[in-house]
Amino acid sequence: MSEILIKEINEQPHIIQNLIDSEYKVIKGISDKIKGKFNYALIAARGTSDNAARYAQYLFGTYNEIPIALATPSLYTVYNKPPKLSDALVIGISQSGQSPDIVAVIENAKKQGQTTLCITNQPDSPLGNAADYVIPLHCGEEKAVAATKTYTASLTALAMLSIAMSNDMEREKALANLPPVLEETIKAAMETNVNTCRYRYIEHCVVIGRGYNYATAFEIALKIKELTRVVSVPYSSADFKHGPIAAVQPGFPVVMVAPSGEMYGQMKEFSKKMHELEAEIISISDQKEITEGSNLGFRIPAGVPEWVSPIACVLPGQLFARQLAFEKGLNIDKPVGLSKVTETF
Amino acid sequence: MSEILIKEINEQPHIIQNLIDSEYKVIKGISDKIKGKFNYALIAARGTSDNAARYAQYLFGTYNEIPIALATPSLYTVYNKPPKLSDALVIGISQSGQSPDIVAVIENAKKQGQTTLCITNQPDSPLGNAADYVIPLHCGEEKAVAATKTYTASLTALAMLSIAMSNDMEREKALANLPPVLEETIKAAMETNVNTCRYRYIEHCVVIGRGYNYATAFEIALKIKELTRVVSVPYSSADFKHGPIAAVQPGFPVVMVAPSGEMYGQMKEFSKKMHELEAEIISISDQKEITEGSNLGFRIPAGVPEWVSPIACVLPGQLFARQLAFEKGLNIDKPVGLSKVTETF
Repeated sequence: MSEILIKEINEQPHIIQNLIDSEYKVIKGISDKIKGKFNYALIAARGTSDNAARYAQYLFGTYNEIPIALATPSLYTVYNKPPKLSDALVIGISQSGQSPDIVAVIENAKKQGQTTLCITNQPDSPLGNAADYVIPLHCGEEKAVAATKTYTASLTALAMLSIAMSNDMEREKALANLPPVLEETIKAAMETNVNTCRYRYIEHCVVIGRGYNYATAFEIALKIKELTRVVSVPYSSADFKHGPIAAVQPGFPVVMVAPSGEMYGQMKEFSKKMHELEAEIISISDQKEITEGSNLGFRIPAGVPEWVSPIACVLPGQLFARQLAFEKGLNIDKPVGLSKVTETF
Repeated sequence: MSEILIKEINEQPHIIQNLIDSEYKVIKGISDKIKGKFNYALIAARGTSDNAARYAQYLFGTYNEIPIALATPSLYTVYNKPPKLSDALVIGISQSGQSPDIVAVIENAKKQGQTTLCITNQPDSPLGNAADYVIPLHCGEEKAVAATKTYTASLTALAMLSIAMSNDMEREKALANLPPVLEETIKAAMETNVNTCRYRYIEHCVVIGRGYNYATAFEIALKIKELTRVVSVPYSSADFKHGPIAAVQPGFPVVMVAPSGEMYGQMKEFSKKMHELEAEIISISDQKEITEGSNLGFRIPAGVPEWVSPIACVLPGQLFARQLAFEKGLNIDKPVGLSKVTETF
């Protein structure tokens, strides 16, 4: 139990607090300079950072009316045919700031005269050096191979940028209230995790979320894959009905991210369908009717607005994946076959 | 063996020929009207059609320098907060033309004064009626629940649009040569499929492609899920190294789409890695060194340019998924739990 990963998971409330304290003013300054100067944003990211980009699609779409496109980095590298960018804000997200293909997108965008920004835990890195504006994550070194604190910090950085751009005092306040919510979420998840032993022998599962928590589903599925070798597949509940639902038989494990908010009705409907199919349900929600009806229910505190809920909802997922790896007797800090910086060209 | 699906799979070479003959001139006319009038394109689609949109990202990026964003329809429907579109071409893809969320994106884009286009097998549908320009797929009714012919027809429609926009005679010729290539691909796959019985008891697999064939990986994974209940997960070989590779143990089934082209080097490298991990390899390629080194190798004819290869490479995937369903004794035309039109709100 003395491994690095659990330490890094537990650091998150403190890191988010620290990030807000150190960077919110700086981000407000960046926002003033770039606001209104682009028609859409293009985000280049891979792996965990790509999941942060998914969150941005809903966040900036809903609160800032900004359409977000996710870049296809190989157009810039392997095919060497970058699309023509015009009136775009180009954002690179990478914890290490080392991914050569993400750096390539930012460098090309700059050459095309577009505004560039990066979010990274290593401001002194190729990515940090390439971008016009840098938001550093202040996470300290992330030693575990599975990224946790840089993910929630990236979401928080994006949230601060969105709030600054819409000058939204109410959201500013909700974000300031987040760190104790994260503390409470972790504490509750630790207790619930006692029953995760039940999943010692699962070999596959799906993770479902929609809207803001589509990103959370992707990130939890990725943690489960990285840490446990379980084949875990993320879906939006909407896409799931377009085919993949055929795989659900009695006992099929379904992880469901279903906090309160605009999407709650959809997720509740989905939950009903899963109960009918006799799926095994692992849920993350502030709603008792969801968690208490589940085989394993992770509670998050009540009153978390949906737009900020992904930062809380991912925590039980990180802890579940970690516990599952523990039950399976795997090396948690150095999962077989993975390395920390992935140099994709 | 007299089921509907196999009939629809076999119709594809003829349908593609018919689509080119009927619509290429019309598409040239559309292209003349819309060319140069937008900075980026936004595509709204779900399920199989969303995979066609993934193909468009590489196609229009590489040959037309157009950045493609994939829409998040729930911003328009559930959240009711559509992003502000400006200088965008908005494309809806839906075989039935009925998906209410895709129609909502097109209707909103029109209200915002953007140019709209749709690709559908049902031009007389809510989607067909909403869009400024309509490309009909002429597939005849698609009766099988798993879409096959409307997928390859959607790719062909996108290819024609890209060719028309760049006025590219060489690509025009390559597309005209496609139907016999598809015939040959199907014939060879039928023979290879004799050995698909080997996979009667698989419960999960991954499907890997990159660049143009990232879309193919998604579509094959979807067909496998829909038809066989096998948990199948699509990845780009680049993303796969960012975590999911941890799940690969000896015997783990990996479907690999690796035709000649710019991405071939990457995929060959990936294949080597999979051999080292003693994965079970099912490949689709024109390269003997790939197919002959695989446990099951589906050949496509030599000389197919990479940009058009997804239309050929998906065929062995469709046939593999269908055969696997047959070996597992499942109802191929009406997979349990699925319906043809999915009404996502």
